[in-house]
Amino acid sequence: MIKISVFYPNNECAKFDMAYYCQTHMPLVQRLLGPVMKGMSVDQGIGGLPPGSPAPYIAAGHLLFDTLEAFQTAFGPHAQAIMADIPNYTNLQPIIQISEIKL
Amino acid sequence: MIKISVFYPNNECAKFDMAYYCQTHMPLVQRLLGPVMKGMSVDQGIGGLPPGSPAPYIAAGHLLFDTLEAFQTAFGPHAQAIMADIPNYTNLQPIIQISEIKL
Repeated sequence: MIKISVFYPNNECAKFDMAYYCQTHMPLVQRLLGPVMKGMSVDQGIGGLPPGSPAPYIAAGHLLFDTLEAFQTAFGPHAQAIMADIPNYTNLQPIIQISEIKL
Repeated sequence: MIKISVFYPNNECAKFDMAYYCQTHMPLVQRLLGPVMKGMSVDQGIGGLPPGSPAPYIAAGHLLFDTLEAFQTAFGPHAQAIMADIPNYTNLQPIIQISEIKL
């Protein structure tokens, strides 16, 4: 299983509308990518370690696919529409990680 | 649900023994923290975006708990034993993120 993780780095000027992300952006991604996307989840950063330190990421979204090719084929035609929605919920530039789930 | 994410930053000198991590370290964490840990997963970084760029993280581990307090209570007494095992599989200093799962 392949996981596409989208990390939004935390900083003092970070703005992130979690309600819009969960209720509008992620459903948009789900609608555009269709059933080839096998799952999705959203994390809200609440802290780091040592205790009291800020979360490295204010938020993260994760999308699951059977294969990297399945993601690329599904994402390519909709990349522009999905990217164009980002300024509607954040002023941050996301960092993308492509992972294989080992456990 | 609370997710403790442990990110291992990728770099040219990064060493990471995924077999040891999945077969020895994570089972050790599970055994020490007990049933208060509700789930765990491991990601292996395979790339970033744009295509061809390296994964920001060579690996990541995620631990699930019902509450932050449950994690802190379970982790505290075993923190030293868990940290002491890190050099057995990597030369990296992990970054810790505590998240609340929103979706």
